[in-house]
Amino acid sequence: MPPKGFRAGAVAAGLKYPDRLDLGLIVCDTFQASAGVFTQNICQAAPVLWSRPRVGKGRAVLVNSGQANAQTGADGLSDCLRSAELAAKLLGLDPQEVLLASTGVIGSRLNTAALLAGLPRLSDSLSDHGFDDFAKAIMTTDTVSKTAQFRLDFPSGPPAAIWGAAKGSGMIAPNMATMLGFVLTDCAVEPKLLSELLSRGTEATFNRVTVDGDTSTNDSLFLLSSGASGQTVIDGGKPAQIFEEALFSVLDDLARALARDGEGATKLVEIVVEGAKTSEQAKMAARTVAESPLVKTAFFGGDANWGRILAALGRSGAVFDPYQVNIDLGNIPWVRQGRDNGKDAQATEVMGRREYRLTISLGAGEASHSMLTCDFSHDYVTINGSYRS
Amino acid sequence: MPPKGFRAGAVAAGLKYPDRLDLGLIVCDTFQASAGVFTQNICQAAPVLWSRPRVGKGRAVLVNSGQANAQTGADGLSDCLRSAELAAKLLGLDPQEVLLASTGVIGSRLNTAALLAGLPRLSDSLSDHGFDDFAKAIMTTDTVSKTAQFRLDFPSGPPAAIWGAAKGSGMIAPNMATMLGFVLTDCAVEPKLLSELLSRGTEATFNRVTVDGDTSTNDSLFLLSSGASGQTVIDGGKPAQIFEEALFSVLDDLARALARDGEGATKLVEIVVEGAKTSEQAKMAARTVAESPLVKTAFFGGDANWGRILAALGRSGAVFDPYQVNIDLGNIPWVRQGRDNGKDAQATEVMGRREYRLTISLGAGEASHSMLTCDFSHDYVTINGSYRS
Repeated sequence: MPPKGFRAGAVAAGLKYPDRLDLGLIVCDTFQASAGVFTQNICQAAPVLWSRPRVGKGRAVLVNSGQANAQTGADGLSDCLRSAELAAKLLGLDPQEVLLASTGVIGSRLNTAALLAGLPRLSDSLSDHGFDDFAKAIMTTDTVSKTAQFRLDFPSGPPAAIWGAAKGSGMIAPNMATMLGFVLTDCAVEPKLLSELLSRGTEATFNRVTVDGDTSTNDSLFLLSSGASGQTVIDGGKPAQIFEEALFSVLDDLARALARDGEGATKLVEIVVEGAKTSEQAKMAARTVAESPLVKTAFFGGDANWGRILAALGRSGAVFDPYQVNIDLGNIPWVRQGRDNGKDAQATEVMGRREYRLTISLGAGEASHSMLTCDFSHDYVTINGSYRS
Repeated sequence: MPPKGFRAGAVAAGLKYPDRLDLGLIVCDTFQASAGVFTQNICQAAPVLWSRPRVGKGRAVLVNSGQANAQTGADGLSDCLRSAELAAKLLGLDPQEVLLASTGVIGSRLNTAALLAGLPRLSDSLSDHGFDDFAKAIMTTDTVSKTAQFRLDFPSGPPAAIWGAAKGSGMIAPNMATMLGFVLTDCAVEPKLLSELLSRGTEATFNRVTVDGDTSTNDSLFLLSSGASGQTVIDGGKPAQIFEEALFSVLDDLARALARDGEGATKLVEIVVEGAKTSEQAKMAARTVAESPLVKTAFFGGDANWGRILAALGRSGAVFDPYQVNIDLGNIPWVRQGRDNGKDAQATEVMGRREYRLTISLGAGEASHSMLTCDFSHDYVTINGSYRS
């Protein structure tokens, strides 16, 4: 059950394709607070520029797929304003309360005519049952819609819920590793805590996912709270701890779903780097392995070629002794002291699985970092060789 | 005509495959000087550890494909020693004068039995006509052997020659962008100048090539001079200038051949970044675009999707105003002030070509940098999904 106090809906507005859900809306009827995190790319799409200063008071989110409305200059911002104004009018809100998100081709003007024409139908479609359609409307090259939910029970007071939806699935890289995410809760959460938990949760989940190392111009993750459950969460208490765990769990589910559905992906691989000299080095090592095209194509082919992992580690900037490195593939002690450990057959078996973990011990210190990645397949090339068509 | 004073040869020694040239040798009979540059990966193959301290006096180069002899520990170094000892004995040299290079799978022991068994035949095969075979013996996933040569004419004194061979074609990234390169000249070049020109030439050529961002454990580039032409080159004179231009031209030819023959590559694209705030930022911007999987798959598909280039620039670390960016594709003014310029059809035509240039003006300063890259194709994935088999 999605959290109370929200309605959602989606329509096929024909922004790019005729019969595909491409416009979604969520509105919080008993609004309490909102928070957001956005792309760190210096080329920021118009909806990012629009929404960033409006989180906090933003209580509705309008999202489209088809055009990213990025690199569209003043025209793009004026398209944002027109969209927010009409949505606000239909919902009885102030335009400043309407958050926006877009995904699609960069550089094309938003199909505002189709969007504005579709908005009244979209507003009429809002209901307690529109959440799945909303999750579908934000898909581009995603093969499945991605939602996650969590029921929260507290020592006292009513139960509550967290629900989230996200879309990937290319141009996914840390800071932040989602194109778009929308998370809702019917707890009433202290606004400062809501922001802080969203930032920390993003760092622990989405920022550890990489599909191709490309960070989007449109990355946006929103967290809205309605307070409609009657449960209040303030910093420091047991409820805050319960809420944090639930929120991180929803974010983690969504982040894993993104990596699992990375463009053309056939494998989900968790890269764990341990024993690094510093946290920064652990991060560099994990990310370099997770993004190496040679490592990712070996994942695709199921080729148990650990030399590529060593080579990626060696250029990552992490400092270590190549002959102190141990690598486990699943539970297989694959590499010991930087040398082959005669486990080729077992390693090949693990690499045939749909999901597995690669644990790298650098033997240089105590710091660790983990990342989620997927393989590079023929389909990644096919999908991205002709994305706009 | 290869330079005087050298002999080369190659044999099929059966290191990995039965009937493929896989062992090559070059010896300088009238030795004058040698220089080398090596991988900056902290995982360095045994032949790199062997050769690095021996350039200068090294006058023969023994190279194998099949095994990289990397991450092979003390065993790998002892395999180097045995190879160098036998080669030296057959050539009448000291083992310290034998440079080594290897390419192939990381982590496998060198097939030293096959190598030692093949060495006498290899030594017998040395001749003035063995250079093409040598260039073939260093190939792994290369589809063509890569050689370049240049005839040098000086204001006075005899003419001279420079010849080079290189192999790629995956795990190619700056610092340095070659797996293996061998350059020979019959000029007598002041040793300090020889080293310095090789370093500068590498920076200007090989270090600007990227296939997949993966830097190898085995990258080695050697430059040997015989002095057999009778032409002497010392720092500062006109001959030094002539020699430098010729050397850079040979290195540039080889670097371009590597990018053109990148694994699975169907396009060669020169990325020129201008108007950056600093050289470092120009470099980051050019490299990020050149290595972006989304940009490279768009090159493959001929998809004129400039938004991916903007998105890559925006995450590169370079500082600029997205609406000051101009991009030309060939001679087509593709993007102006960060916006689409209505040239989709012409841009698509350029992207259908085998080779083209992408010129990016950031409008933020005076610094520039260029890189050579290739596209990411289905074949890249196929080749690297099953490299070891």
